[in-house]
Amino acid sequence: MPDKREKRLIALLSGPDRRGIVARLSGWIFERGGNIIHADQHRDREEGIFFQRIEWDSMSGDLEAETSAFRKYASELGMEAWVALPDHLPAFAILVSRFTHCFHDLIQRWRAGEFRCRLACVVSNHEVVRGDCEHYGIPFFHVPVPEGGKEEAEARQLDVLGREKLDFVVMARYMQVLSPRFLERIGCPVINIHHSFLPAFVGGKPYHQAHTRGVKLIGATAHYATPVLDDGPIIHQDVVRVSHRHGVPDLIRKGRDIEKIVLSQAIAWQLEHRILVYGRKTVVFD
Amino acid sequence: MPDKREKRLIALLSGPDRRGIVARLSGWIFERGGNIIHADQHRDREEGIFFQRIEWDSMSGDLEAETSAFRKYASELGMEAWVALPDHLPAFAILVSRFTHCFHDLIQRWRAGEFRCRLACVVSNHEVVRGDCEHYGIPFFHVPVPEGGKEEAEARQLDVLGREKLDFVVMARYMQVLSPRFLERIGCPVINIHHSFLPAFVGGKPYHQAHTRGVKLIGATAHYATPVLDDGPIIHQDVVRVSHRHGVPDLIRKGRDIEKIVLSQAIAWQLEHRILVYGRKTVVFD
Amino acid sequence: MPDKREKRLIALLSGPDRRGIVARLSGWIFERGGNIIHADQHRDREEGIFFQRIEWDSMSGDLEAETSAFRKYASELGMEAWVALPDHLPAFAILVSRFTHCFHDLIQRWRAGEFRCRLACVVSNHEVVRGDCEHYGIPFFHVPVPEGGKEEAEARQLDVLGREKLDFVVMARYMQVLSPRFLERIGCPVINIHHSFLPAFVGGKPYHQAHTRGVKLIGATAHYATPVLDDGPIIHQDVVRVSHRHGVPDLIRKGRDIEKIVLSQAIAWQLEHRILVYGRKTVVFD
Amino acid sequence: MPDKREKRLIALLSGPDRRGIVARLSGWIFERGGNIIHADQHRDREEGIFFQRIEWDSMSGDLEAETSAFRKYASELGMEAWVALPDHLPAFAILVSRFTHCFHDLIQRWRAGEFRCRLACVVSNHEVVRGDCEHYGIPFFHVPVPEGGKEEAEARQLDVLGREKLDFVVMARYMQVLSPRFLERIGCPVINIHHSFLPAFVGGKPYHQAHTRGVKLIGATAHYATPVLDDGPIIHQDVVRVSHRHGVPDLIRKGRDIEKIVLSQAIAWQLEHRILVYGRKTVVFD
Repeated sequence: MPDKREKRLIALLSGPDRRGIVARLSGWIFERGGNIIHADQHRDREEGIFFQRIEWDSMSGDLEAETSAFRKYASELGMEAWVALPDHLPAFAILVSRFTHCFHDLIQRWRAGEFRCRLACVVSNHEVVRGDCEHYGIPFFHVPVPEGGKEEAEARQLDVLGREKLDFVVMARYMQVLSPRFLERIGCPVINIHHSFLPAFVGGKPYHQAHTRGVKLIGATAHYATPVLDDGPIIHQDVVRVSHRHGVPDLIRKGRDIEKIVLSQAIAWQLEHRILVYGRKTVVFD
Repeated sequence: MPDKREKRLIALLSGPDRRGIVARLSGWIFERGGNIIHADQHRDREEGIFFQRIEWDSMSGDLEAETSAFRKYASELGMEAWVALPDHLPAFAILVSRFTHCFHDLIQRWRAGEFRCRLACVVSNHEVVRGDCEHYGIPFFHVPVPEGGKEEAEARQLDVLGREKLDFVVMARYMQVLSPRFLERIGCPVINIHHSFLPAFVGGKPYHQAHTRGVKLIGATAHYATPVLDDGPIIHQDVVRVSHRHGVPDLIRKGRDIEKIVLSQAIAWQLEHRILVYGRKTVVFD
Repeated sequence: MPDKREKRLIALLSGPDRRGIVARLSGWIFERGGNIIHADQHRDREEGIFFQRIEWDSMSGDLEAETSAFRKYASELGMEAWVALPDHLPAFAILVSRFTHCFHDLIQRWRAGEFRCRLACVVSNHEVVRGDCEHYGIPFFHVPVPEGGKEEAEARQLDVLGREKLDFVVMARYMQVLSPRFLERIGCPVINIHHSFLPAFVGGKPYHQAHTRGVKLIGATAHYATPVLDDGPIIHQDVVRVSHRHGVPDLIRKGRDIEKIVLSQAIAWQLEHRILVYGRKTVVFD
Repeated sequence: MPDKREKRLIALLSGPDRRGIVARLSGWIFERGGNIIHADQHRDREEGIFFQRIEWDSMSGDLEAETSAFRKYASELGMEAWVALPDHLPAFAILVSRFTHCFHDLIQRWRAGEFRCRLACVVSNHEVVRGDCEHYGIPFFHVPVPEGGKEEAEARQLDVLGREKLDFVVMARYMQVLSPRFLERIGCPVINIHHSFLPAFVGGKPYHQAHTRGVKLIGATAHYATPVLDDGPIIHQDVVRVSHRHGVPDLIRKGRDIEKIVLSQAIAWQLEHRILVYGRKTVVFD
């Protein structure tokens, strides 16, 4: 079976659960000459919602028309469908402040081809990564956020980020809270890495909070940013063991490694169209 | 959507990969009024094999006929199919020697209803768990394996185990190597727990081997027993951290916990019909 | 070097940090013919407190006098010292309700000799483990806690538990909150297992809370019970990965395994005199 | 207590176990006005060897004399001692080939100040990291290893590496086997990262080996290079879960993350003088 990667379509669907959905969707694809490579489903029985991710090889010569027809068919079944086209190379931007470990980790993964995407630009309220961005050939924009100047700064950020169609934005330890207005206007998902095991230690200085409480594990959480701080749908989490020996600087150092792992995994899933959000939760078809 | 558990069918299929398999199988189920609850697939591209697990609610009044028809249809697609009937309560037996932590762990899980199955009997070459079996109301058979008396002992074991139709047998730290002849004649899968991260430390005294090598993690491996010692298809593995502080007795003690976790998880998957074996490997649809 | 286990002393010390403490304590032991087997220290630099655990083989014929002299010397250095005598077999009691997985896990470990201690008795507000206690030969006391009858029930519990000198009490998923008065009068540490990663999901039904929040890891926390619910010093924590596939019953089932692991590890450390409490934190010399 | 970091000494000792060692060493330090900050010990009872790591603040104005006296005293006790001076900034070199994820990870950690050391140079049999080394200001040497030209290449490597006193060398996925002659002449420890859980999958293409065997976890091992391939004393290991879904490229991708974590942790311990080697094992005082 030849791998016709150029024709691979990936659909994410959700809607009210009903009998026969799995068979109908795969039947539709089959009748049009498609070959299902992988299909995964989930039912939230409490909410009565059905979720599906389907990957298939399409024989169609006109993929735009094909996805349009697919969405129409899904809609007749009461489902919302989103389809990724194979020749679309996703684009994302990075927001970063002074802690640059996640930034460097993402950049090296991106340079190594681990992420199949375009890195549109890097925006920072500091100058620390300008030199590296120039070395790596990534557009860099310095947008300072002075005391009381957040609204203006966000306007500039929106201006810079709005120059191209972004698929998502990554807050790689960007230490400013984004306003509800920004999140509304950015028009694409924003992935944040919070340096604690949410919902423990919401807000500022979570490693200090963790140290004060005397926990034996510290965590990191990748989630979609929402207007409520550190409350958005969780994509991925991980923890690492600590002990009484570890002071706050040790927690910060140990935490860096899980922040990098958790954030990069969330981005990989985002790029592979594996995440469906509903309410405050995510379905991750990994 | 009412949960008609009594009509839930689970099929495991494998065969040569070909276009349209996913759609055809789900179409067949749909046409006969079935509703697919979950379906998972895997392709081994090197070997060109397709694997699927489908769970569906059947409307059929005659499930025997339904599964028979399903197997026939699968066979026309070149697939081998195995179907679990909802009213079949699986039965298994435990082989155990003198280290009884896995035995006790399994028994308590079984008593708590964690495993939906019947525990047909316990067979041991020692007497240590007789009293507990009697307390728990589980048939116990003492089959000693004296030096040079293995063939005879295995004949007795086969006799005892053959009194009922077993779905699988569990070696819960049974410290005797089962002969190829036994494995052939037992007629059902045999799951073994090996106290190392296979393929490291095959054979006897793996914790001693691990200590000698100075590893920093020790492991446990649940696998299907085959005629080649510790070489069968791996179902599940886990590890736990150790250090220079841990002598062999510490490794044994720490290892007990992962042996229990790994073996009980393998049994849970076996009971939920999540494991397909091919060659020296497993597909675990978890 | 012969292993004179019968003469092994273990001291836990804490007090204001000052120069020379390590050398002075080891010098004192050496001068009296003792041989230090292991010594571990910790400094909380923010609080200026020094902690130490010393294990040594004493040559003294009168260990009571020896430990008394040791405590006196430590006190001259400004330290509080606690010394475990080798011929003291610790005793503990278990409180349990209807979820018995931790109870069974502890019992099997205790029966297997994993814990070097005496199990004084089991107290439950239900009858479910009476039969097992009788089989295992463990004194069982049924103390129901009817609506509004908690004070009386706690009086009976204190009466039962007070019949022997307990070193600690274990709440093995005991589903009643112990009153401050009980904790004060019991006169020994009480170890609780909470079925979440504290401080996330304090209070009742933490698995339901975790499911609602959509976390990707669930946890368990062993801590000392204090008058403030789920707020006591944390001894040990662990987590296990979950996904959108796992409903509340799955979280409960998966959580059982980490509850058992975390609670049994906390008890092992308690028995080996590895835990020092200060404020809301613990030092665990593992 | 002021933190006199400039006077902090760290000693690693090993030798035949005997009574009173802990007390004698701490007594010696105390008598000379030193204050022990942390001391950790280990006994290998089978081999009768005692190991210790002591960190203390010395009052001495002449640290060279002090360490010399300490080593002399240790030698009288039959111990070999190694002492790190506070004003010595360790230097190391990196060997790297075409897989550069470990290289980039180490460089970013080093740039962020995570490693307190000097990066003397990078030596590679390829040109791929030359541009990055120049950007970061790190001396880069290209030493190709043509078929049959290994001896000559190693001579050049030794020449380049011998220009300064190195404390250790790191093989950051350097894909050439170093000859016994090289290891002997380099005159410092060489830390290698092997991309499997040793001793499973020694030698080439371990991810392919792991895939063929169907393991459910893959690992990485940091160890000291010895003349026997992948057989040296293990410093650190970790694993990550894989499934039937993961082909060899997935194992390679997932493995990169644990390779980075494991190698960087080993280097951190090396820099903090936490590792003692004996025979084929390590004691890691973490």
